[in-house]
Amino acid sequence: MKKVPFTVQRDSGDVPAVVWLPEQAAERRPLVLIGHGGAMHKEAPFVARLASWLADGPGYATLAIDLPVHGERTPEDEKGLSPLERRNRLGVEAWRERNASNTDQAVADWRAAIDAVQELDSAVHGPVGYAGVSMGTRFGIPLAAAEPRITAAVFGLFGIAAGDTESAFAAAARQISIPVLYLLQWDDELFPREDGLTLFDLLGTRDKTMHANPGGHLRLPRAEIDGMLEFLRDRLGGGGASPGTS
Amino acid sequence: MKKVPFTVQRDSGDVPAVVWLPEQAAERRPLVLIGHGGAMHKEAPFVARLASWLADGPGYATLAIDLPVHGERTPEDEKGLSPLERRNRLGVEAWRERNASNTDQAVADWRAAIDAVQELDSAVHGPVGYAGVSMGTRFGIPLAAAEPRITAAVFGLFGIAAGDTESAFAAAARQISIPVLYLLQWDDELFPREDGLTLFDLLGTRDKTMHANPGGHLRLPRAEIDGMLEFLRDRLGGGGASPGTS
Repeated sequence: MKKVPFTVQRDSGDVPAVVWLPEQAAERRPLVLIGHGGAMHKEAPFVARLASWLADGPGYATLAIDLPVHGERTPEDEKGLSPLERRNRLGVEAWRERNASNTDQAVADWRAAIDAVQELDSAVHGPVGYAGVSMGTRFGIPLAAAEPRITAAVFGLFGIAAGDTESAFAAAARQISIPVLYLLQWDDELFPREDGLTLFDLLGTRDKTMHANPGGHLRLPRAEIDGMLEFLRDRLGGGGASPGTS
Repeated sequence: MKKVPFTVQRDSGDVPAVVWLPEQAAERRPLVLIGHGGAMHKEAPFVARLASWLADGPGYATLAIDLPVHGERTPEDEKGLSPLERRNRLGVEAWRERNASNTDQAVADWRAAIDAVQELDSAVHGPVGYAGVSMGTRFGIPLAAAEPRITAAVFGLFGIAAGDTESAFAAAARQISIPVLYLLQWDDELFPREDGLTLFDLLGTRDKTMHANPGGHLRLPRAEIDGMLEFLRDRLGGGGASPGTS
């Protein structure tokens, strides 16, 4: 697997990005976008681990970017703080509002990054999958609603409050028409269970499956991470040869 | 695969049973109990198909019985009627009440059948798994709560009304401490979504996963049936050799 950092140049500012490519040459391979969580970044362990499995297993390319106010785009006065310190400094509500206000920017950054990444790989990219929970779902649902190249997605660990079902985010959820694997933590302390169930209910696609497990926000079982990879592989199809057959 | 019909003789009346055994000899193999659904019987297509996969795949034995007032135990005046006709004749509420009133009988019949089936197989049976949705869960949860030989179970397509959380059935749900795969149909017309979520919530085990899919009671996706088999195989472990390796 090769890791290639690159920069997406946009009028609104540079977007630091990284693409992981399988060693094997291929004419065409699926591309998976991994949306990092709140206060994380494009090379967080969760992202890098998924990228490594996708490259070494089905032979997919994986793309991640630093989302607005995250990673290399972290505001000066928040640099060096831990995720918890950053959230506590702003307060959870203000933290969420700032992320929500960056949705259009995040979607545009992602779309530009999909355009740009093709230059770095000799293989044609297609189809495109998306996997991102928590903040990865906050941005991923509007992205998947807007971007027809995305043909399958993993979402979860997020929610819509009962009073928020007329929001732009809820409208995007209703527009989702691709296959979705949806992950819910039954005892999520950040997003109430009811809000997570409401979001699953709103997703417009008929091809959706929810996997719910006991435990808090950060306790997603390892089996579900394997399940994400299996889902993407099932829905995106063959890439290059897998290590076992090459 | 060999299909062996047999009868469990009990003071309360004979219990017609059938066991499916792999062709391969083994010293020891897991046993799976399949609890049939309402108005179905021990050799309903769903039961027979699971039995066939379990025998030919991981090499498990499978046991099914005609539950009270079902199959060969159907009351004379209901014989020859379709499942829907039977339910409509009694009315859904009376139908459910009659099944609920047969819970102790069903549990005792199952336990006697587990004892009896061992006589028919040269292999020792263990561990024991259970799979049954809808009425298969009505009887399966009290059975699994009472029967320590059962070490993993698939439940679902059932529920507990908010006002019923102090019932004997709810108490049994709280006693479940084994790994559970729980299936929920998001648009189940027979068991309201909320009741299905309540039952999942009440299950006492921490090792539980819910898979929820759009569609009505009878629309369980094929992928979830595969998932049941995968779950049982993961949790019960090796039986005889699989056909691919023998």
